[in-house]
Parts: sequence; structure tokens; C-alpha cells
Amino acid sequence: MNPETKAKLMGVSVATLATALYKRGLRNQVIQGVQPLKGKGVNMVGPAFTLRYMPAREDRNQLVEFRNPEHPQRVAIEQCPEGHVMVIDSRKDARAASAGDILVTRLMMRGGAGIVTDGGFRDAATIAELDIPAYHTRPSSPTNLTHHEAIEINGPIGCGDAPVFPGDIVVGDDDCVIVIPAHLADEVADEAVEMTAFEDFVVERVKDGATIIGLYPATKEENLEAFAAWRAANGR
Amino acid sequence: MNPETKAKLMGVSVATLATALYKRGLRNQVIQGVQPLKGKGVNMVGPAFTLRYMPAREDRNQLVEFRNPEHPQRVAIEQCPEGHVMVIDSRKDARAASAGDILVTRLMMRGGAGIVTDGGFRDAATIAELDIPAYHTRPSSPTNLTHHEAIEINGPIGCGDAPVFPGDIVVGDDDCVIVIPAHLADEVADEAVEMTAFEDFVVERVKDGATIIGLYPATKEENLEAFAAWRAANGR
Amino acid sequence: MNPETKAKLMGVSVATLATALYKRGLRNQVIQGVQPLKGKGVNMVGPAFTLRYMPAREDRNQLVEFRNPEHPQRVAIEQCPEGHVMVIDSRKDARAASAGDILVTRLMMRGGAGIVTDGGFRDAATIAELDIPAYHTRPSSPTNLTHHEAIEINGPIGCGDAPVFPGDIVVGDDDCVIVIPAHLADEVADEAVEMTAFEDFVVERVKDGATIIGLYPATKEENLEAFAAWRAANGR
Amino acid sequence: MNPETKAKLMGVSVATLATALYKRGLRNQVIQGVQPLKGKGVNMVGPAFTLRYMPAREDRNQLVEFRNPEHPQRVAIEQCPEGHVMVIDSRKDARAASAGDILVTRLMMRGGAGIVTDGGFRDAATIAELDIPAYHTRPSSPTNLTHHEAIEINGPIGCGDAPVFPGDIVVGDDDCVIVIPAHLADEVADEAVEMTAFEDFVVERVKDGATIIGLYPATKEENLEAFAAWRAANGR
Amino acid sequence: MNPETKAKLMGVSVATLATALYKRGLRNQVIQGVQPLKGKGVNMVGPAFTLRYMPAREDRNQLVEFRNPEHPQRVAIEQCPEGHVMVIDSRKDARAASAGDILVTRLMMRGGAGIVTDGGFRDAATIAELDIPAYHTRPSSPTNLTHHEAIEINGPIGCGDAPVFPGDIVVGDDDCVIVIPAHLADEVADEAVEMTAFEDFVVERVKDGATIIGLYPATKEENLEAFAAWRAANGR
Amino acid sequence: MNPETKAKLMGVSVATLATALYKRGLRNQVIQGVQPLKGKGVNMVGPAFTLRYMPAREDRNQLVEFRNPEHPQRVAIEQCPEGHVMVIDSRKDARAASAGDILVTRLMMRGGAGIVTDGGFRDAATIAELDIPAYHTRPSSPTNLTHHEAIEINGPIGCGDAPVFPGDIVVGDDDCVIVIPAHLADEVADEAVEMTAFEDFVVERVKDGATIIGLYPATKEENLEAFAAWRAANGR
Repeated sequence: MNPETKAKLMGVSVATLATALYKRGLRNQVIQGVQPLKGKGVNMVGPAFTLRYMPAREDRNQLVEFRNPEHPQRVAIEQCPEGHVMVIDSRKDARAASAGDILVTRLMMRGGAGIVTDGGFRDAATIAELDIPAYHTRPSSPTNLTHHEAIEINGPIGCGDAPVFPGDIVVGDDDCVIVIPAHLADEVADEAVEMTAFEDFVVERVKDGATIIGLYPATKEENLEAFAAWRAANGR
Repeated sequence: MNPETKAKLMGVSVATLATALYKRGLRNQVIQGVQPLKGKGVNMVGPAFTLRYMPAREDRNQLVEFRNPEHPQRVAIEQCPEGHVMVIDSRKDARAASAGDILVTRLMMRGGAGIVTDGGFRDAATIAELDIPAYHTRPSSPTNLTHHEAIEINGPIGCGDAPVFPGDIVVGDDDCVIVIPAHLADEVADEAVEMTAFEDFVVERVKDGATIIGLYPATKEENLEAFAAWRAANGR
Repeated sequence: MNPETKAKLMGVSVATLATALYKRGLRNQVIQGVQPLKGKGVNMVGPAFTLRYMPAREDRNQLVEFRNPEHPQRVAIEQCPEGHVMVIDSRKDARAASAGDILVTRLMMRGGAGIVTDGGFRDAATIAELDIPAYHTRPSSPTNLTHHEAIEINGPIGCGDAPVFPGDIVVGDDDCVIVIPAHLADEVADEAVEMTAFEDFVVERVKDGATIIGLYPATKEENLEAFAAWRAANGR
Repeated sequence: MNPETKAKLMGVSVATLATALYKRGLRNQVIQGVQPLKGKGVNMVGPAFTLRYMPAREDRNQLVEFRNPEHPQRVAIEQCPEGHVMVIDSRKDARAASAGDILVTRLMMRGGAGIVTDGGFRDAATIAELDIPAYHTRPSSPTNLTHHEAIEINGPIGCGDAPVFPGDIVVGDDDCVIVIPAHLADEVADEAVEMTAFEDFVVERVKDGATIIGLYPATKEENLEAFAAWRAANGR
Repeated sequence: MNPETKAKLMGVSVATLATALYKRGLRNQVIQGVQPLKGKGVNMVGPAFTLRYMPAREDRNQLVEFRNPEHPQRVAIEQCPEGHVMVIDSRKDARAASAGDILVTRLMMRGGAGIVTDGGFRDAATIAELDIPAYHTRPSSPTNLTHHEAIEINGPIGCGDAPVFPGDIVVGDDDCVIVIPAHLADEVADEAVEMTAFEDFVVERVKDGATIIGLYPATKEENLEAFAAWRAANGR
Repeated sequence: MNPETKAKLMGVSVATLATALYKRGLRNQVIQGVQPLKGKGVNMVGPAFTLRYMPAREDRNQLVEFRNPEHPQRVAIEQCPEGHVMVIDSRKDARAASAGDILVTRLMMRGGAGIVTDGGFRDAATIAELDIPAYHTRPSSPTNLTHHEAIEINGPIGCGDAPVFPGDIVVGDDDCVIVIPAHLADEVADEAVEMTAFEDFVVERVKDGATIIGLYPATKEENLEAFAAWRAANGR
């Protein structure tokens, strides 16, 4: 992805991005119900590379299946391009794992930018300490075969009720994860940077005792002027 | 599909089939949570032809999309082969419709054997009266575009937590719908016919006052003998 | 149970009984989420005889288990005393059946007064036509072994979030099912008969155009007088 | 409300109305999860008159409260104007009733056009037979006091996740219920009548064997012409 | 509120308060499902000041609405009196935010004692670090307009299935939040202080190896005597 | 339990155990939805000692009941043998507590190895700091009497949808809790130790840059050889 866009998206919140997409009529781009295994204080940013699970049929999902070098779960990990975020459609079912620490470690080693499932990870306590951001709904120890069969790599999916297309830009912070349609990433990143400057200004004013009425949004002329001055003074 | 297998499956219950699959280690083949729009007293039987929905992104799902002759929802209806059951993965989300009466009527006219969604149909009261079996979770009037984007035709899907592969044999009765893996259809049909004969015999005995202990299953030799006699007498 | 109490309970609604128990501080006696397989227009009344399911462990719940003449599900059906209502704790899990038509037919033949589960029945369309009232949450074709192991006969259970003790009086109408603690059955039946007379009077008045203010409840003296006259006139 | 608008809305489906509102950017106007107590084959149409429940606090919700002539539940029934639909916000909680047959009968006698709750009605089997349409999620026998306190009459509410303002036009058919913002009722009614004519034409064509591609929507010129001819021939 | 009562409530647990209310027949005063954004080790105590959301209708909830100086969400923040706890009825829907860090910061600056929603906050990681207690169900980045319209300030509401009236005393600890009816606050605070002394004594004894039978509650005379001695010794 | 088995189970993860049971056809042994009150970094291991709750009936569950020295909740705490894990069936209902800090402290003093509920604990912040592992779904301050009646000690139960028999071996780590059927504990522990050695080897290789294909599982001969060498070198 565009490195400047990535840099911008590293510095804005998912909340701000959600508002920027809301302005464009997109209301369902936040992946609902997922949380970081551990807050890292740094954003996850990268294009989506997807994996889709369907419900497991027992005869097709014995442990021996993992011996197949073409098993889609393992192949997906090996194919996910550097800098991409793997997004897994687990049908919001965390009764069995979407992946475990070995696969997430491998993804990290290959330069993956992060991993998200609307199910759960096994070895979650270990994954939390890895140097790669990961988001799920809750820890889940059973092997994925118990309820999930990996069936498709890098197609369009749903994740936490959000639509995800390969190449969409995925951004996660310590609260949530959002999916920015690829063609909007640059303009949304620009706008979010602007919005963030304003929000930082507002927080500063509010901490100084200002009312939010007329300030957030800045419907009073004086606040617009103050913001302009603040930008100049703060180099933003 | 094999017409003899179809004939056999027309005469057995989903409950009996579920037990036959259970014997083979398959525990999740019933599509959970769906019901017939109207009990028809006749089974729905046919190979699965699938449609998958993903969550709708607003900019891709305006009404104008339906003007596209390649729109997958409409194309799926036109491609579903005669005698097949259309099975729709709506991610168990009935907040918007999976289809309405016009499309289901078209499917009926093309010889479709039935339609199943783990979401809901609009125009459900009308569909209920059509001469094609239909199963869903509840009526849902909003157009599918509201929450669903049709994204894939005839791939492997989940429906009501059951795995469905194109060509699997789908059977519905007035209670439930089950998915029989294609390679098991013939043997399961045979076994279910046998089981049904035995169950009919058991019901008759129970209505005559027999205890179920030793009869269901027939662990007492005398019951096996009585069943043999009953089969001879009833031509089954 | 007391035949006079039974006769009274045949003539009152679950709603009226719920209010009578509410007066006594009992707010959770309605079995939540169950419905009759078919409205019969006649109440189900009888003491509770219970069966408890726990989650099935696969090695203990193969089909062969049913060959055990001591299998609790089948034994419970054979032990349920005449006139009793079998109440099944299925942990509100309808993914597998609580029972099927053969067992319910046997219960009917043995004089059972009804059957209730907070799960689902298989062969539900058949059970609906039997001459015994049955209540569940939805049809469910998979054999009980899939998710349930029958573990205890006639102990205290929960059913649809209501507490049920063996011998409690269970009443079902076309809406709902309620559990009356055994020691309260006689007095609650008496009170419900009184309340029903009053409600019948009120309905008549309302259908004649009366306002409900001052009538329901009868805080206006004139309505109490009218009720007294109505009772005399109608022999109630 | 405008009698012509009402007449139009009597003749269109909720599904058609949902699409008309969808065109205007309104995606959440269908009251999710409710169903008619009995399909009447006739639409319910009328302006909304609302009642809001909050969770019951035990000390404020003893049976004696009903003796208060100002009790909001009963007052609401007596105030609901003729021709209006009472819409009740029960917080999607059907563990206790929203109302029972006496109140609904009174509403019917006063000329109410219908009643909707996102909870449940007690005496549901009786209400189903009354000459007033009623919609809920499931029967619920416990008195409303068990979990609900009626707290506000005719304010803005949520019902089944849909926003409802007093005076909005509520339409129900045998499938669902929809809420049309008051200021859009006339134009939406007009448009829905047009859409219904077209859908009726399409159904006729489909039953004659036509494909839906190019017909629904009518992207082929020949279908537009055929529709014009059909309208002329059928006086629509 | 009474400063002595506040001081007492700062020193007792929500669990103890729940038991004190249980004794008075109040069983539903704990706000279900909420958790502190960050455990502070100090109680939140203050009278409730409420805000109610209804489902958002798209035409009424565009971003421009925030420019309205009367927008109820922002007005509520500016009106919440010092020392009060803002309690928000978000209909248990965390798909969109109830508020974000700017508003919560403003509430903090104005002396608010805390904020609770049965939905979720955006900017949750930031709010967690503010010097004001906050409780929600999970982080939620989408702007409130996505699913919520602020409709009423300081009326009676439900929050997490608990009834909340303006002026009720709200207490939160690191586990849960409870709502004490205003008229009971003083007596419940007194009782909770007594109960806490006893519980502290019990914990000490249990850590010394005592059995709980006869001690908790103190049905053995010797334990009552020991408690009296302990109180004297510890100045409680 | 066998001390060697216990030692082995202290050193393996629940995820590994889940896979070992999966190989034996047991797919539902993880207690779904529970989490440690605080990650301890050390496993909980011990035989199950169970307690079952049923829904509370108000007249049987007043505070005075705790004065009964035979109250099953308190008796269970006093009877739980040293080294055992108390597992509580709370019907997945966390609206009221399963236990509080005093009882859990007592269990700790008596040498209990841990405590698990599929409901919630009150005083959770305090319990989290105790020297005994505890797992639940979320904090819950209301006294257990509000919704639960302790009804049976040390019988077979369900907990988080898993079957639990007294004496089954319960293992918890920072992610999840699993229930090993008693007769499988020794062999599963052995196998899990072996699996853990292999997984540790794999992680090391993956951190060195190895692909997972052919390594996990080790379908390539060279990886088996490398593992053998690794075992020798590392004394495992």
C-alpha cells in the first residue's frame, strides 16, 4: 500500500476513521465484537488478505488433514504477503480456534502486519506477547478442525458483520478494527489526519475548561480562528 | 440425482436421516433454526445449488445494482438446475430478505426442487402458497441489499451452522432440513428406508400398548421376530 | 393430584395463574420460550415428572447406548406415572432432540398428561397430531445423543429458566406453560377460578363499550356491584 | 391520516414499502422480530400512538398499582385515538406480557387500528381471534408488572430496533410491520402503488415462463412496453 | 447527595449493596453486562443524571446534526450537575458508540462523578486513562449517529436491564454498577457499612482457618461474640 | 489424582490437551466462554468436585436460607477435597453470582485447586488477587439467591456446554479450561507432554525462519530428524 497513507493511518484512531467513512455513507466497516489480545499502543495497518472458514464436516476434518501441504489454513499463512493483515471469517463462532501461536508466529516472521478473526485464537496468552497485533473475540483452545474448515483464500468475506474485500485497508487500534475500501484509503487517511488535528485541539481546549457547544463541531467562528492559530503554533 | 435414491428420500423423515448420518460420525448436517414457510406434508429432495451472501457495503448495494444482468442473486436463480434445491448462506442474519416471491416463483417455474436460507424471505405469505417448498428462519421484508451482497454462486457454504457443498443431497420435511454428503446419499437412503420400516412397526406396536424397552431398539429376540413377520405381512 | 384442583385448572388460563403466583411473590414460574406443537384449545394439567439432560460426551453417547434397558430417557418414559406431565431440562439447547414420536406415543399410551422440553422434539409434525399436549421451542431432528445425555430421573431441574420440582403442578394452555409449587396448587386454583369469573365479566363489559378505568381492576363500587349481579345471573 | 393514503397503503406489501424507503436512505424502518398473532390477509394501517416500558422496580410494580386510574398502560389504551396503531417499546423483552386480551379488546372497541409490541402478549390465543391486528414476538403469560413499568405515553421510542415517532404511519401485513416517517407517507404510498402494479405484472410474466433478467428490473425496452400494455389492459 | 452517605458508599462493595437491596425485595438493580474501562480501585458514587438513546433514523442523524447547539447528547454533557453520574440507555446496543473521549473529558472537567452506558464508548483506551470512572460493555468506534439518536435528557430509563430514575444513587466498583433508589440510599449505606464490617471480620477468620458454617452467617453464638470483640478491637 | 499426571498437566497447554482429546473423538470438553479472573501464568489442575444450581424460586431462596448449616453452596465449599477443582453449573447465567470472595477464600484455605463457574463471581476483583485460580464469564455482584438455588453436590453436570463428571481432571491455563475424562487423564497427559516437546521445537524453528509446510505436522523426513536431534540436545 501507499507508504504515506500507511504512515497517516498509523497516527489516527479507528473512531476518527469510522466517522470519515460515515460521512461517505459507509456505516458497517467496523469489525464488531473483536478486541486486541493485548493493547500495543500502536496501530495495525495493512491491506487485507483473507481466509474463509465454513462449518466443519467431520469426515473432512480429521487431524490427518493437516498433513496435506495444500491445507488452506497453512497455505494462507505462507501466502499472506508482507505488510498485509490476515482477516479470517470464522462466522463469529469462537467455539474452536481460528489459529494458534505457531501459525501466528510464522505470519509474524513472514512480515505480516497483523491478524484478525471474528472467532478466537488458541494459545492466546502466547500470541498476545508476540510482536504482531492480533484481534479476536475470546481465547479458544479447541483446534480449528473442531468446528471450522478453511475453504477459501483471499476472496471477499464477512468478518464481525463487516464486508472485507482483499486489498481493503485494515486499521486496528487498542479499541477496534476498521476496514477501509481500497479506493478510499488515501482520501480517508488525509481527512482523518485533518480531523485528528482538530480533535487534539479540542481536547486541549476542553482540558482548559471550554464547553463543547460551539467547539465540537466548531460552529463558533472564534473556535475556528483559535484552531487556525493552534495549527500554526503546533506545526499541524 | 439418482431417481431411485430420490424416491427413497421422499419417503423418510429428516429425523431418520439424521440418525443414519450420526452413525457415520456426522453430527452437524441439520440446518439449524429453519422452518418451512408452510408444512406441505411432502418432502423436499434435491442436490444443493448454493448462493453465498456477504455483509453489504452501502456503495456496492444500491437499488441500481439489480439492473446489472450479472447480479449474482438473479443469475443464481436463472442457473439453478432443474430438480436442485437452492441453499443460501445468509450468515444467519434475517434482518434483510434472502429473496422474495418473484425470484422464488421464477425458481419454481424453472423446476427448482426447493429453496432454503438461514435468513428470511420477504413476501413470505405469498411464497408459502407457491408450489415449491421453502424454508427460512422468519419473514423479513427489507430488500436483500440492506444487509446482504450476493457474492458467490455454487461454492461451498455454511447454512444454519451446517456445511453445504454443491451437489450434496438436501432433504426437508415439515420439521427440518438436512444435508447428506453426495457420496453417502445412496447408502443413507437405503438405510433410512429400512429404519423407517422398523419405526413404522414400532409405532404400531406402541399404539397397541407395547413397552419401548426391548423394542426400540429391538434388543429382545421376540421383537425381531415380530418385525420379520410384520415386514412379510406388510410387504416391506 | 386432587381431581377438583385439576378440574379447576383445566378451566383457567396460564396468564391468570401467573398473576395469582405473582401475588405470592413468585415471578419466574412460566417456562420461557416454549410453545405448543399444536394449539389444542384444552389445558394440559398434571404433576411434574422430570428428566434432566447434561451435555453429551461422545464416548458415552453412541447409538448402542439405547440398547441398554436402563437408559434413563427410555426408563423415564416407562416410569412417568399416569396423569403426570413429563418436564425435560434440555438446557435450552434445541440443536438436538429431547425426544421423538415413538417415545411421546408411548407416554400417551401410558396415560401421560403431557410433555414439555426447553429444547426441541424430532418428528414434531407427527407429535403435533397425537392426542397428548406437547410443548417445545422448535422442531429438532438430530437424535438426543448428539448433544444430550439423559442423566437423572425425577430430580429438581430448570426448564426454560423456571424451577421445577417433581410433583409441582404443571399447566399449559395455547400460549404458555406454568409451574405451580405443589403446596400452592389448591389455593391458586381456587383463586384463579375467581379471577377468571371476574375477567369473563370484564371482557363482556368491555365488549359492551365500558372503559377499563375503574373496571379492571374494579376500583369503582358500581363495577363491583355489577359483577355481583353478573355472578348471580350467570351462576358463577 | 389522509384517507387516500390509507387506502393505498392497504393495498401494498411491507416488502414494497421497505424498498421505497430504502431508496430514500432509510434502512431500519421494519420492526425486527415481530409477527402477526394470526395472519389476517388484510393490512394494518394507521398513525403510531406509542407506549414505552422501562424495567420494573419491584416496589413500584405491585398489583395494587393497577388500581391507580392514572396507570400509564391503561391510560394509554383509553387515549389511543381511533384509527391509530398502538406501538409498544418493551425493550425486546418477552419474558413478561406487554398487554392482554382485556386491554386489546378495549383498544379494538375504541377503534384502534392495531397493536404492536417487541415483547409478547398474554392471552395471545384469544387476541389472535379478535377483530384487530396484533403483532408480537411470542406469547408471554406473566403480567407486565413482572418485568415492565409503563413510563411514557406517546413519546419517541424504539420498537424491534426501529425508530418510532408518534404520528409515523405504521403498516403491517402477514409478514412484517414497517414504520413510515409521517412526512413521507403520501409519496411513499404513491410510489408503492406504482411498484405494486409493476410487481404484479412481473409475477404474471414469470408465471408465464419469463426470465427475470431484463424484466425485474425492466432493463429491456420490450418489457417496459409490455408493462405499459398490461397497465392499459388491466386498468392500472 | 448527602455527603455522609456518599462517604459510606465509597467504602462498601456493589456486592454488599446488592444484598442489602435484595433484603428489601429489589433484585434487578445491578446494571447487567457493564465493566469498568479500567479498574480504579476506588468507588464511583453519585446521583444519576440520565440520557436516553432511541434507534437512529438516517435522515435525522447526519453528521450535521452535531452543529445543532441543542443536540441532546452534547447538551446532556453540559447539563449534568457536578457530582452526578451520567447513565446512558443505549438499548444494550454497542454497535455504535454512546460517547467518546472529548465528551467524557468535558464531563470530567465539569465535575461529573462518572459515566455508564449499556452500549460502548469510542476512544475507550483514552477514556480508561482519564480521571473519571467509566463503565460500558465493550469499545465501539462508530459515531453514535450510526445507530443511536439522543432523544431525552434526565428521564427514567433502563440501563443494562436495571431501572434508573434521575436522582437514584449509582455506585460502581471494579466489578459492577448498582442503582440504589434515592429514598433508600441513606439506610442502605448504613446497613452496608455494618455488613462490610462483618464481612471483613469473616474474611479475617476464614484466612485464619475458620469454617464458614456457623460463621457466615453467624448462626453460632461464639461467632457473634467474637465479632463484637473484633469490632471493639478494631474500632468498627 | 496421580501426582505424576498432575505434574505433566501443569506443563502443557489446554490447547494441546484439546487436540489430544480431539484425536479420541471428544470435541466438547473445553468449558466455553469462561476466562481466568486473572492470568496466573501457572496451570490449574485437579479432579472435579461439582455443584449444580437450578433456577431460584423466591420462597425457597430468602437470605435466611444461608442460616441453614446444610445449605448446599456452603456445604460444597466445606466438602470439596484438597487438591480438587470446584466446578459449578450455573446454567451459563451470570445475572447473579455463583460465589463470592469469602467462600473462595475458604476453598483456598482448605486446599482447593481452583474454582470454575459458567456464571460469574461477586467480589471478583478480590478473588482475582487470591492465591487460587478462578474462572468465570464476568463479574456479577447480586447474591446467588437472586437467580440460583444450589441443589446438588458432586453429581454430573454441564458447565459452559461441556460435560463434567466428578473426578474428571480439570485443567485451566491463561486461555481456557478443559475437562479430561478421568480414565483418559494419564494417557492424555503423556501424549500432551510429547506434543508439547514437538510444539516447542516447531516454535523454535519457525522463529528461525522455517516454513510450517512439512514442519507442522512434520511430514518431511528432515524435520523428524531435526526434532530427534533437538530432543537429544535439549534433554526432552
